[in-house]
Amino acid sequence: MTEIHIGSTLQYDVRQRTVFLFQITAGLTSRQRVVNEQLNFDPFVEVEDCQVGVEGNRVHRVIVEPCQFSVNYQATVDLKQEIDPQTQIGESKVAEMPAEVLTYMNPSRYCESDLLGRFAFEEFGQLERGFSRVQAICDWVYDHLDYTPGSTNATTTAADVLLQRTGVCRDYAHLAIALCRGVGIPARYLSGYAVDLQPPDYHGFMEAFLDGEWYMFDPTRLASTVGLVRIGVGRDAADVAFSTLTGSALLMQKNVWANFAESKPNLDEPSAVSTA
Amino acid sequence: MTEIHIGSTLQYDVRQRTVFLFQITAGLTSRQRVVNEQLNFDPFVEVEDCQVGVEGNRVHRVIVEPCQFSVNYQATVDLKQEIDPQTQIGESKVAEMPAEVLTYMNPSRYCESDLLGRFAFEEFGQLERGFSRVQAICDWVYDHLDYTPGSTNATTTAADVLLQRTGVCRDYAHLAIALCRGVGIPARYLSGYAVDLQPPDYHGFMEAFLDGEWYMFDPTRLASTVGLVRIGVGRDAADVAFSTLTGSALLMQKNVWANFAESKPNLDEPSAVSTA
Amino acid sequence: MTEIHIGSTLQYDVRQRTVFLFQITAGLTSRQRVVNEQLNFDPFVEVEDCQVGVEGNRVHRVIVEPCQFSVNYQATVDLKQEIDPQTQIGESKVAEMPAEVLTYMNPSRYCESDLLGRFAFEEFGQLERGFSRVQAICDWVYDHLDYTPGSTNATTTAADVLLQRTGVCRDYAHLAIALCRGVGIPARYLSGYAVDLQPPDYHGFMEAFLDGEWYMFDPTRLASTVGLVRIGVGRDAADVAFSTLTGSALLMQKNVWANFAESKPNLDEPSAVSTA
Amino acid sequence: MTEIHIGSTLQYDVRQRTVFLFQITAGLTSRQRVVNEQLNFDPFVEVEDCQVGVEGNRVHRVIVEPCQFSVNYQATVDLKQEIDPQTQIGESKVAEMPAEVLTYMNPSRYCESDLLGRFAFEEFGQLERGFSRVQAICDWVYDHLDYTPGSTNATTTAADVLLQRTGVCRDYAHLAIALCRGVGIPARYLSGYAVDLQPPDYHGFMEAFLDGEWYMFDPTRLASTVGLVRIGVGRDAADVAFSTLTGSALLMQKNVWANFAESKPNLDEPSAVSTA
Repeated sequence: MTEIHIGSTLQYDVRQRTVFLFQITAGLTSRQRVVNEQLNFDPFVEVEDCQVGVEGNRVHRVIVEPCQFSVNYQATVDLKQEIDPQTQIGESKVAEMPAEVLTYMNPSRYCESDLLGRFAFEEFGQLERGFSRVQAICDWVYDHLDYTPGSTNATTTAADVLLQRTGVCRDYAHLAIALCRGVGIPARYLSGYAVDLQPPDYHGFMEAFLDGEWYMFDPTRLASTVGLVRIGVGRDAADVAFSTLTGSALLMQKNVWANFAESKPNLDEPSAVSTA
Repeated sequence: MTEIHIGSTLQYDVRQRTVFLFQITAGLTSRQRVVNEQLNFDPFVEVEDCQVGVEGNRVHRVIVEPCQFSVNYQATVDLKQEIDPQTQIGESKVAEMPAEVLTYMNPSRYCESDLLGRFAFEEFGQLERGFSRVQAICDWVYDHLDYTPGSTNATTTAADVLLQRTGVCRDYAHLAIALCRGVGIPARYLSGYAVDLQPPDYHGFMEAFLDGEWYMFDPTRLASTVGLVRIGVGRDAADVAFSTLTGSALLMQKNVWANFAESKPNLDEPSAVSTA
Repeated sequence: MTEIHIGSTLQYDVRQRTVFLFQITAGLTSRQRVVNEQLNFDPFVEVEDCQVGVEGNRVHRVIVEPCQFSVNYQATVDLKQEIDPQTQIGESKVAEMPAEVLTYMNPSRYCESDLLGRFAFEEFGQLERGFSRVQAICDWVYDHLDYTPGSTNATTTAADVLLQRTGVCRDYAHLAIALCRGVGIPARYLSGYAVDLQPPDYHGFMEAFLDGEWYMFDPTRLASTVGLVRIGVGRDAADVAFSTLTGSALLMQKNVWANFAESKPNLDEPSAVSTA
Repeated sequence: MTEIHIGSTLQYDVRQRTVFLFQITAGLTSRQRVVNEQLNFDPFVEVEDCQVGVEGNRVHRVIVEPCQFSVNYQATVDLKQEIDPQTQIGESKVAEMPAEVLTYMNPSRYCESDLLGRFAFEEFGQLERGFSRVQAICDWVYDHLDYTPGSTNATTTAADVLLQRTGVCRDYAHLAIALCRGVGIPARYLSGYAVDLQPPDYHGFMEAFLDGEWYMFDPTRLASTVGLVRIGVGRDAADVAFSTLTGSALLMQKNVWANFAESKPNLDEPSAVSTA
């Protein structure tokens, strides 16, 4: 088990009555256990805790009148680290995939696997199937993109990124997801906290479905998968925005942090971390 | 209650072992009751009945060895027709929407509501909120597009259609969905059977979430909503393809039919049909 | 005649041997006469004066070794103001257009008139033909876009802008050009200097071919057409970049100015200025 | 010298007064000499011979009243075959390129070299400069695309093709052009007649500017460059449509042919053919 402290603070200048949907709290999964957590709003507002989507993403809905508004979240999370002998992990056949996994084969807003299918097949279709193929896709993404803040925006898609060859974590994940789906591997997007991320921010990474389980990958290599705490999961970034607001409010400040409670486990990278 | 007979036959030339995912059977919802149904495969194959996605779409998975393969589906469905006084139906506020509805506000592969948001807001932002606004969106789509088979393909999106102004049922629905989401109304895609559809085929239409319920619309005006039988529901057409196949098979023939068991109810159009 | 003083200074940090193509000097046309001009490079370099494209855009090519490099241009230009009775100006028929105008009917990189043709026709196809129709297109662009620096980049096209509804001068011009071509009016892009432009910069605007002549329009309304001095002309912004460089150099500073030599002529707007 | 017979017949059902711009006659260049030619219209109409664009493309403009209208073109063309030792041919430096070549470095409607620049640079940036690099680009295009009639349409661009990996001659040429421009080699689109093309049709191919001259390439490998007769040249296919019509007319039939007057010269492929 690895214990990780995470947290974030968001400050808004709320100009008129605004409905916020926050997705900033640690997900509750069999892999990660929330030891303790606090979610505070200042000034105090009633909060509604929603479970959204098939995976039950935790979304907190609040209605805020005009004010200086801040949200503070802090938690300690225990991560189960299953170190798998990655070379042994194969792919699941479509004939055997659980029904709930099938939608993660479909193209989505930012991961147009239908457009990228032939490219994916040409580039990765002949590789040995399994964990190593997803790793090869992530390596390709890492090798061919330049991590360039500001080079993309909220409407940039995997196809855009494949051509322009620059992006940030969200774009890396979208491209890796689209390429996985393109060769028939279910893949999904995760938002989360990442230990040692520089500069500190919420992070975006991905999971591929292999041999009956979801495995995490971070194509940016900005963070070790052993320090990744999942917030939400979705088809792409559209499903896990840290905040969605209806009304009028300006984000004034954002602080995000994550660190190991104790010394980091000594593990060789890349390790395979399966989740559920 | 309206009783409708529906059915379809698909014939494939299966060239090598192929996994099929079929989505051709009537959905099981509170609005529509399947009185009887038969799903037959020739030659006989084991079939696995999957529930996919949050809405539990019925997907039938079969594995087929090389052969001439045919699928036949027939059913009688009872539709509950709730004729609502449509002018009374308002919109739901984000602050009050059920959690499971929120994902239908997100952009999806073929409904880029993020790109079309400003257009939607300019064109429909000032209209009175409610059923009539969705009707206005569907009317706009009907008025501005030419129904032109062959003018679009599997990768055509709502943004493409908004520019090129042609499409088929799928494109009409995608554009209407994107515009609804663009003004803050949850909307989703439905595949189904449509009584009197010419030429006969599976149909694509949409639902908007208003005042706590989903309401059906067909922006093509090719079919009356009282004769629409839902197969599956999703964010867009990517989620409800009538068949998805992994392997090698050629669709040789497709027959689709739907008709009222008795004389069609005499209803003025457009009527509001709420579903769940 | 209107006399205008224009000029610009560009400073570069040249990191390695770089070939520059500058397009910053006033065009030589029957409408505008360069009374005097100076183009200086510091340090001194050999300069080659090229005439590029059908319209003979003035491009200055220099080869620069690593250094702090600056370019200074100053000129006095006399503009002939032909005040036309704009309501009398009709459109040219394809049957009568001069051959050299025909290419300005074709779609170009940033003006996809092929994609926007139906939209243009629906919106502007029924208007009376002539100057007033181009004015209606420019008014529509002005009314439906928000001038938002930073909302677009070097790859943004007219179709993008039509959807997202924001942009800068270049985007306004591209959209107006694409819509003109979409209804069969030849249109082209101009870069230039603009008196009173705030903030000062090179400007982008357009010309439409009407009744045998080119007429200038500025859909941004940021500058009066009587104060517009043309640098170059092309199918779109791709043809008239103020600098194109091969090598490695960083633009450190850019100053652009333009003002009337004497008091501005008292003319009612919008005036029709024909050029050749 | 190689003598080639070329010709084409177009038949239209003209529904209302229509202006046609035809681009179907052999270009007049230093490489190809038109020995004799006939351009006939039935019924007879006045024809205007226009020179369009910097390269003086031959465009024939006619105005046709409602009728069954046919165009017939026949010519004998002498091609000068300059067999160059291709490995010796280098690239031109930007510093030395003739001014009229510079616009062929710009992105165009169907050749978005700005979007594909990084891809081009990654894939071909390190290759030895010269004829062999253009050949490598054409080989890459040939190897990675499937020639699939119907897979693209009039709005398909090089970026689309790079992702979807299918197309026809026009798409092959567009992608090769965009990739050449992406690495700094001027490139342009040619329409023409091609000996032995199957099925017979007008053909689309390309030229790259190397070492002071334009060299022809056909990335489809459907025709030998020694049997290519140029009609027109442009930035991309938008400039050289075989017919552009304003009015209402339906193309009923199209016949195109090209064959060697005598036995084909015995040349090893790929040969370098320079043109001007």
